[in-house]
Amino acid sequence: MSHLDEVLPGQNEPPRDALLEIYNEEGAVSAEFIARVEQAIEDGDVDFLREQIAGRHESETGDVIEALSHENRPELVRLLGEDFDLTALTEVDEAIRLNIIESLPPEQFATALTALDSDDAVYILEDLADEEREEILSKLPFTERIRFARSLDYPESSAGRRMQTEFVAVPPFWTVGQTIDYMREDEELPDSFSQIFVVDPTFRLLGAVYLDQILRTKRQVKIEAIMHDTNHPIAAELDQEEAAQVFEQYDLLSAAVVDSNDRLVGVLTIDDVVDVIHEEADEDIKRLGGVGDEELSDNIMRAVRSRFGWLLINMCTAFMSASVIGLFDESIGQMIALAVLMPVVASMGGNAGTQTMTVTVRALATRDLDIYNAARIIRREAGVGLFNGLAFAILIALAAGYWFDNPQLGGVVAAAMIINMFAAAMAGILIPLLLDRAGADPAISSSVFVTTTTDVIGFFSFLGIATWWFNI
Amino acid sequence: MSHLDEVLPGQNEPPRDALLEIYNEEGAVSAEFIARVEQAIEDGDVDFLREQIAGRHESETGDVIEALSHENRPELVRLLGEDFDLTALTEVDEAIRLNIIESLPPEQFATALTALDSDDAVYILEDLADEEREEILSKLPFTERIRFARSLDYPESSAGRRMQTEFVAVPPFWTVGQTIDYMREDEELPDSFSQIFVVDPTFRLLGAVYLDQILRTKRQVKIEAIMHDTNHPIAAELDQEEAAQVFEQYDLLSAAVVDSNDRLVGVLTIDDVVDVIHEEADEDIKRLGGVGDEELSDNIMRAVRSRFGWLLINMCTAFMSASVIGLFDESIGQMIALAVLMPVVASMGGNAGTQTMTVTVRALATRDLDIYNAARIIRREAGVGLFNGLAFAILIALAAGYWFDNPQLGGVVAAAMIINMFAAAMAGILIPLLLDRAGADPAISSSVFVTTTTDVIGFFSFLGIATWWFNI
Repeated sequence: MSHLDEVLPGQNEPPRDALLEIYNEEGAVSAEFIARVEQAIEDGDVDFLREQIAGRHESETGDVIEALSHENRPELVRLLGEDFDLTALTEVDEAIRLNIIESLPPEQFATALTALDSDDAVYILEDLADEEREEILSKLPFTERIRFARSLDYPESSAGRRMQTEFVAVPPFWTVGQTIDYMREDEELPDSFSQIFVVDPTFRLLGAVYLDQILRTKRQVKIEAIMHDTNHPIAAELDQEEAAQVFEQYDLLSAAVVDSNDRLVGVLTIDDVVDVIHEEADEDIKRLGGVGDEELSDNIMRAVRSRFGWLLINMCTAFMSASVIGLFDESIGQMIALAVLMPVVASMGGNAGTQTMTVTVRALATRDLDIYNAARIIRREAGVGLFNGLAFAILIALAAGYWFDNPQLGGVVAAAMIINMFAAAMAGILIPLLLDRAGADPAISSSVFVTTTTDVIGFFSFLGIATWWFNI
Repeated sequence: MSHLDEVLPGQNEPPRDALLEIYNEEGAVSAEFIARVEQAIEDGDVDFLREQIAGRHESETGDVIEALSHENRPELVRLLGEDFDLTALTEVDEAIRLNIIESLPPEQFATALTALDSDDAVYILEDLADEEREEILSKLPFTERIRFARSLDYPESSAGRRMQTEFVAVPPFWTVGQTIDYMREDEELPDSFSQIFVVDPTFRLLGAVYLDQILRTKRQVKIEAIMHDTNHPIAAELDQEEAAQVFEQYDLLSAAVVDSNDRLVGVLTIDDVVDVIHEEADEDIKRLGGVGDEELSDNIMRAVRSRFGWLLINMCTAFMSASVIGLFDESIGQMIALAVLMPVVASMGGNAGTQTMTVTVRALATRDLDIYNAARIIRREAGVGLFNGLAFAILIALAAGYWFDNPQLGGVVAAAMIINMFAAAMAGILIPLLLDRAGADPAISSSVFVTTTTDVIGFFSFLGIATWWFNI
């Protein structure tokens, strides 16, 4: 999380040569630097901390905080006092952020909040418990309280939560010259911006003008003559992921956020959208891996909680597969080779199914999979499943036949392999498609259904064909 | 892929009410619209196509192209002729792009290329075979040839390939007034930009000024008085992923790209960086799923190729696990329940290992895992592995003991489960860390090593303990 004034690096920073290098050659925070900071915290050397931490970019400060020991984090914030830029808290893991906030006196925290851009303040406030948040809000000056509360009223993960409520808006009848003069004199402007908005007296959005357009136009030209439609205003209630897709599709740098009456309420900027894109990709990867919304800073019990459910479901489905094997215990008793080979059939199916599922889940997330290509992709996956099924059937038949000196067993495993690879391909595409249709997130639930399918079909086809063929 | 002039929507577009709606309510391309376009292509109705396609944003045109049938795609481009904006090709899958390019007469293709921003042209050119590319380049006017060749000289996936070579640079002794007048009069400016660069006569980079800074400053002030250090210039050779990380960390909108002599050679913009972030997340997800660099438009044979290698490796490791089972064939012969339960132990280990691996691979990709927290994370994963191992050992012991009416068997499976869950946690974190240290991409190769480890240890511990305990 961050804000546009950060496109103006160097403005509030001390001269670079006075700053120690905080990253080592591999791009990680340098151990030497952290050692010096921890020493300074221990010694209460506020001058050093102010010089080395206070002026840094929020992401650098965030990296330092994450590298510090648990006890030193709130201590650093306490020592820096007013010189600590709270924005840095938007750059650290949730657990670390909450820990630091809890250690701050509410008054100091409230004062520090007023210095933030509204999007950063809201990002920090929204994770707090309702009670705590109300307490902090009640300590804020009226303007800030209203400003933050307006964003917090929008649903979680909506554009309204991510927007900045600071923006420049002018009436359409102003000239370019008037507008430039206004910007030169107004002290209350946002720190940086790439477009200004044109509104009517009730703040209904009429259009927008990009700064380079203003720079290229003569002073006497009216704003309405050069303004363009804001083709892609974002509804404040829109989910942040969908807002990010609009930014990506139309290569926006910033977009007006409007309420249900088309009134301008804020501006969403690309840097926040970049964070959203990152978060959403993160979420997909973690959900596919079965680890929920875990963060790296989570402790053992939080990590156990986020993984337990998935493992429990897996245990149930594993017993389901085991019971399929149990059906054929007599066959296995007569031919131990079946027990040796059956995990090979299941494992190949599981991997092939995961491949197809990965492609499908990703294509659904990026909206590349739709009614035009769904039929084609299903046909393609069927083809890939059959082709790979045939190829690996031959390879495994040769390997198994040679190993157990039993060509018939090779034939049986080959037949099971073709069936299971084809089933894997179909499960890998149809299960995510159906989950998506049903409104579930395919990333979170496909994996367990797909591997259960391939295990059950793998064991059943292999042991079933063997029982029938060898007549046991 | 796209360019900054697209932040000026509406400039070249026909009035919105004349345009048909191309997306349906679900955000997919509307079937009705595609039917009308295909009809127009069949009828050779160039007027309709020009009106409905030519003025659209490149990403919309790209979506339309992807929804068309294979034969109609080059036909649409041919019918539109000069009215087809080649930028749209940066928005479609590689296979579709190459197919369209092959169908274009080289002269028409070369002419269309000269209208593009350099980053888009390079994006299209870089996928062509060397020979084809040389042929096209030789047909270009001298300036364009040099401009594109300069970018193409940089390594693949480098910042130099993604940069735009169009930018505004002024000397430090100019005043704000001179600069504004220059921008008002110069016709050769890039379509849109958010900062201008300050250079010496040899084009060495001295600094930069943001447009809002210029707007807020009086005309007589000199540029050198308001310029700031470009704190984060990007080396042209830098990998695009690392360049994207600089953008993300410092919330940049654009950054100067410099050669090895610190000379300004281009500008990298956030919209290209957003594409890079997307591509890299895509790559990680696909590599974790074992599907290489596959695209949705790939045909069966390309998809088979991209997945075959992974399945082949999996077959070899599956036989390795099978041979572990083979060691205990006599034990299984005496106690079939072992064959029934052994996949449960292996599957639980595989899932737990995948969870840890997912967290580790993602943390390495986002650089959240480093020497400060590696030890802590390893300890945490050990703790999670032991805790979940114990919990599921109890659950599975009860289930298995009850199922086979054999409490001792429950105890054996519990012991194996604790061992395997702990091994899974260690493999899940140490294997990606070691691969990363060795310079390999942990996303591409961790999965196979982790699941092989959990399979082998799962089968070996369960069957081994059973053989020893029941003395078979």
